[in-house]
Amino acid sequence: MRKIDIPDIEDIARGAALLGAGGGGDPYVGKLVAVGAIKECGPVTLLDPEEVPDDALVVPIAMMGAPTVLAEKAIGGKEYETLYNMVTQFFGKEIYAFMPMEAGGLNSMLPIAAAARLGLPLVDCDGMGRAFPELQMVTFTIGGISATPMALTDEKGNSVIFDTITNKWTEELARSVTMSCGGSVAVSLYTLTGTQMREYGVKNIVTRSQKLGEAIRTVKNSETLTPEEHFLQFTEGYKLFRGKIVDVLRETRGAFNFGKVVLEGIGDYKGHRAFVEFQNENLTATVDETIVATVPDLICLVDTETYSPVTTDALKYGKRVLLVGLKCFDLWRTEAGLELVGPRYFGCDTDYIPLEERCKEGFHV
Amino acid sequence: MRKIDIPDIEDIARGAALLGAGGGGDPYVGKLVAVGAIKECGPVTLLDPEEVPDDALVVPIAMMGAPTVLAEKAIGGKEYETLYNMVTQFFGKEIYAFMPMEAGGLNSMLPIAAAARLGLPLVDCDGMGRAFPELQMVTFTIGGISATPMALTDEKGNSVIFDTITNKWTEELARSVTMSCGGSVAVSLYTLTGTQMREYGVKNIVTRSQKLGEAIRTVKNSETLTPEEHFLQFTEGYKLFRGKIVDVLRETRGAFNFGKVVLEGIGDYKGHRAFVEFQNENLTATVDETIVATVPDLICLVDTETYSPVTTDALKYGKRVLLVGLKCFDLWRTEAGLELVGPRYFGCDTDYIPLEERCKEGFHV
Repeated sequence: MRKIDIPDIEDIARGAALLGAGGGGDPYVGKLVAVGAIKECGPVTLLDPEEVPDDALVVPIAMMGAPTVLAEKAIGGKEYETLYNMVTQFFGKEIYAFMPMEAGGLNSMLPIAAAARLGLPLVDCDGMGRAFPELQMVTFTIGGISATPMALTDEKGNSVIFDTITNKWTEELARSVTMSCGGSVAVSLYTLTGTQMREYGVKNIVTRSQKLGEAIRTVKNSETLTPEEHFLQFTEGYKLFRGKIVDVLRETRGAFNFGKVVLEGIGDYKGHRAFVEFQNENLTATVDETIVATVPDLICLVDTETYSPVTTDALKYGKRVLLVGLKCFDLWRTEAGLELVGPRYFGCDTDYIPLEERCKEGFHV
Repeated sequence: MRKIDIPDIEDIARGAALLGAGGGGDPYVGKLVAVGAIKECGPVTLLDPEEVPDDALVVPIAMMGAPTVLAEKAIGGKEYETLYNMVTQFFGKEIYAFMPMEAGGLNSMLPIAAAARLGLPLVDCDGMGRAFPELQMVTFTIGGISATPMALTDEKGNSVIFDTITNKWTEELARSVTMSCGGSVAVSLYTLTGTQMREYGVKNIVTRSQKLGEAIRTVKNSETLTPEEHFLQFTEGYKLFRGKIVDVLRETRGAFNFGKVVLEGIGDYKGHRAFVEFQNENLTATVDETIVATVPDLICLVDTETYSPVTTDALKYGKRVLLVGLKCFDLWRTEAGLELVGPRYFGCDTDYIPLEERCKEGFHV
């Protein structure tokens, strides 16, 4: 157990945005939301997963929708309380703690804001260890845990509770409502017992985000390593490409951001091209003609100067970026995991090959 | 208080289909659903609105979606119980009785089936006195009563509860979910107290449906009147046109059936043409160039031989029909009523002129 206070927020947001793998929302908006809540209501208690009683009700909270919309529409402030009331009324039981659903610049911050505003602790655990676009894409689905009852509310005050036969149906129905509500909403889903959270959750993700964020902030402080070497060392990242953004194709469809970003090599990569395809999050990275990384491994773009993560909604012509791959949480590499979030689910015509193997065979300069 | 048993069903379904004004679902499917339930579970008690205690919970039940889909997809059988459980859990109070939301071949039958299967009484009252395509289009909206909490369930077992800021938002969100569930679902909404039901409801609608249905069945039994004269007498209907269907344009969009049926005059109307535009229900009737009736008055097509109502999903080339107008419930003719369901809401560029005035000025052969 420790406290999360305002000085912690920026590092957590930055590190979580890296783990967001392009998605999970804008860390700047996320920071504002969390800092605002802590300023008004005080710091948040972060619980180690082991500190949660077995039968306590743990409720993940997130924004659902297209990150481009999220960044402009944001949230109204009453959503957390509405979600709290919906969930407690449904279960007839108090919520013990909130937790994040996914890592991401906004989706790691929202549960902190909710916890601050409602005076509840936050658990240091999430359901992805990264961000994914669809709501059935959580480790809890592998554990056979239902997404429903799922509570959804918009900034206007409309609220909906879903109780569905599969987590894919929850995604289907909640996505429709999200679109009708204008493309982004606040949700709570996969309400867990302490035991379930510990069995399937990705533990210590908030702490990991904070450490990554701190390392990015001090990336130039190493005396022996270049910033890039330093960055690759503490993220345990695989360098995939370095280039300038020369094209961004985007489409907002079905409350998702679909698109592709094209990079022209710089430095050692001069004369080569790469592209990354995304659906909210980055799905595949291709250098020249070779796929060098796919979901569920994390494909991240970071600024070549600051090493700050660049989310898919912030991609812009001319920006220079380092393309990095990070290994995903082990459970995603199992058969059940790959069925949920492997490249084929997203329509990419390739089997999953772990990042480290692709990098062994793949493109090198 | 009286019992509704199998012999009553066919008349109620036929009369309700007439009041459905083209919508409200197929009376044949409706009849099967109600007869099946009564056969298994026994007759249903029909309560006069005055017999319901002031604070008793009265729950309207209906199918929502496109009638063409309804006729094929129908219902699974577990929906009533799911709706019952959702509503009682939400209110923490038992349901006293069901009631229909709208008159219609299917939507008048479903509440009977629900009442039979759950052993509850049915109240002789609805919220329209006809059928309308969108769910905010009920007298209760005029009374400031919220559609929510609204419960929705599909035949697969997915269920959703809506709690929205306006009845138009309920329509918006529930319609999205209806589409995602395949175009038709079972819903309960506008949960009322006995007092509210009595203040704004359209009373004795089941009994009226049954009387109309009985009169249609015996339309040829008059010794002094032709069947057509007899039909116009007991329905208090305005004869608008008689013709053969020569074209039907249809589009299923947004879980609605939109379309237009074109008639070529027969008998006295030879050489003239008419068309009726619809959105689930018939919206306007035009003879040659003159609008002869619009919503909220009822525009009904009936078979020229049997005088059975022809719903919009059953329109077919070659069928001979009588086009009739019936006066709507008084509340629909108020300013608040016309704002909800007047011709301009549906995009028709005309003010509402009561049927009887249009018929004074309008087309006559």
